[in-house]
Amino acid sequence: MINQLIEQIKKTDAPIVVGLDPMLDYVPEQIVKKSFAQFGETLAGAADAVWEFNKGIIDATCDLIPAVKPQIAMYEQFGVEGLQAYQKTIDYCHEKGLVVIGDVKRGDIGSTSAAYAAGHLGKTVVGSQRLSAFNEDFATVNPYLGSDGIQPFIDVCKEEKKGIFVLVKTSNPSSGEFQDRLSDGKPLYEYVGEQVAAWGASYMGEDYSYIGAVVGATYPQVGKIMRKIMPKTYILVPGYGAQGAKGADLVHYFNEDGLGAIVNSSRGIIAAYKQEKYAQFGAMHYADASRQAVLDMVADIRSALHAATKN
Amino acid sequence: MINQLIEQIKKTDAPIVVGLDPMLDYVPEQIVKKSFAQFGETLAGAADAVWEFNKGIIDATCDLIPAVKPQIAMYEQFGVEGLQAYQKTIDYCHEKGLVVIGDVKRGDIGSTSAAYAAGHLGKTVVGSQRLSAFNEDFATVNPYLGSDGIQPFIDVCKEEKKGIFVLVKTSNPSSGEFQDRLSDGKPLYEYVGEQVAAWGASYMGEDYSYIGAVVGATYPQVGKIMRKIMPKTYILVPGYGAQGAKGADLVHYFNEDGLGAIVNSSRGIIAAYKQEKYAQFGAMHYADASRQAVLDMVADIRSALHAATKN
Repeated sequence: MINQLIEQIKKTDAPIVVGLDPMLDYVPEQIVKKSFAQFGETLAGAADAVWEFNKGIIDATCDLIPAVKPQIAMYEQFGVEGLQAYQKTIDYCHEKGLVVIGDVKRGDIGSTSAAYAAGHLGKTVVGSQRLSAFNEDFATVNPYLGSDGIQPFIDVCKEEKKGIFVLVKTSNPSSGEFQDRLSDGKPLYEYVGEQVAAWGASYMGEDYSYIGAVVGATYPQVGKIMRKIMPKTYILVPGYGAQGAKGADLVHYFNEDGLGAIVNSSRGIIAAYKQEKYAQFGAMHYADASRQAVLDMVADIRSALHAATKN
Repeated sequence: MINQLIEQIKKTDAPIVVGLDPMLDYVPEQIVKKSFAQFGETLAGAADAVWEFNKGIIDATCDLIPAVKPQIAMYEQFGVEGLQAYQKTIDYCHEKGLVVIGDVKRGDIGSTSAAYAAGHLGKTVVGSQRLSAFNEDFATVNPYLGSDGIQPFIDVCKEEKKGIFVLVKTSNPSSGEFQDRLSDGKPLYEYVGEQVAAWGASYMGEDYSYIGAVVGATYPQVGKIMRKIMPKTYILVPGYGAQGAKGADLVHYFNEDGLGAIVNSSRGIIAAYKQEKYAQFGAMHYADASRQAVLDMVADIRSALHAATKN
């Protein structure tokens, strides 16, 4: 799957992923009204609105992008009905040929991680059947429990040719509280990064490993260091746009081959119509605003990478 | 909710929680056959089997125990249908008066943690409604992202009078890989524990905080230290039974008031009928085996605490 992701990044010339993290107040009124008319002001109504909203954005952007990253929390907040919308979103993205990165940040002791891995990336044994549940292509994983919490994910990745992105340095303001804590002069995230590189060596694709890392765009100096520590690791980079990072902050997350990183934007794309910059589209044409925001984001990153290559 | 949990621990004189972590191969054949007959060898069939299995155990043990801890991964592996069984299990436990600790180990950046907190502990705003989704009483939470990933859970706990247990030191063999890493001579889990105590001070119940911690039973020396670092923190202790810890290992997780810790056993209780010790019950009476295993576990812990008090 890492090979397919890279192929689709090359084909679209867009090292980006659209974060499908729909808050209900991002969804234009015409969609919410229709869903509430059908299902009432219920969890099912909210889930339907979110799904219809996603569908519009996917239709408007799928030819421009290699991948999407639905954030499961935004669906889980609507309970079982929300998770049905998550499932529908994944299936629809697959129909459209997109790689799906499930931003689930799961991680537990071995036997429990095995269940998460089966449910999200692999197959669950039911009698004589082996059945897929959520069936994402990649999942994000939390490393706090150490190797035996990660290994079951790697095992399933090997069986299914799928991948994971392990949290190394997250994009939020307080990520340093534990992740930056120094041990023998080195921050925890470097130890995690070294471990990600070691796990990754056990399952390589053509040029990059199936085992990737998450390093936030909001800490560009960390990105530069982690790029060197994990040269064969694909880096999923959250924090672009609404969280503050720009294309120029991102150049050191990439390798000289122009690959090695994929940059996420969520709110900046899916709620673009709410920004002054894209206000002319209006709520009725929210998906066209998202399309324009994708084009602008890709142009920003391309030009930053281009400028960096010239220097 | 921490007050209610403590009240129920006192009433049952049982500082334990039953981990409802059903693997399909724990479920007796008569239940699996019936569910497959109705729903086929499908995710819905598996989810139904797990739910019927849980129901039997809940009915057989609910008068003896204060709380249950369903592990969501075991349901999530069966996709949306599995999560329906998770929801039904929570609702049924509430009907039976049990406190429900959702072992979800969620944690993300602020806005995303807020969605998890709403979905599991709080209410989600849908139009003019404020709706509960999964509605557990407590949730386990991963601290890797730091304070701004935890604060939204605390905010919802304050609104709803609910609680969380933050992972400090987990019970699995490789938990030390990152959690034990020394910084200025002190392991990471102590820094996390100090932070849990600080978060906890902001939201106290009568004697203990609504903000608890997870410290594995498999590291009793750590338990002893963490008890002192977090005197007002309730400690959820996994690792008893199938993972190897015994009652005598647990005495230092408790305070002198006999409170302060709640010990989980999952497989050791719910799959008791598969152990030689309880084989006489047979698969037909698996729930009676679970009841006996609860009685034995409570007796083991009581006698260890009694012996410790005498010394």
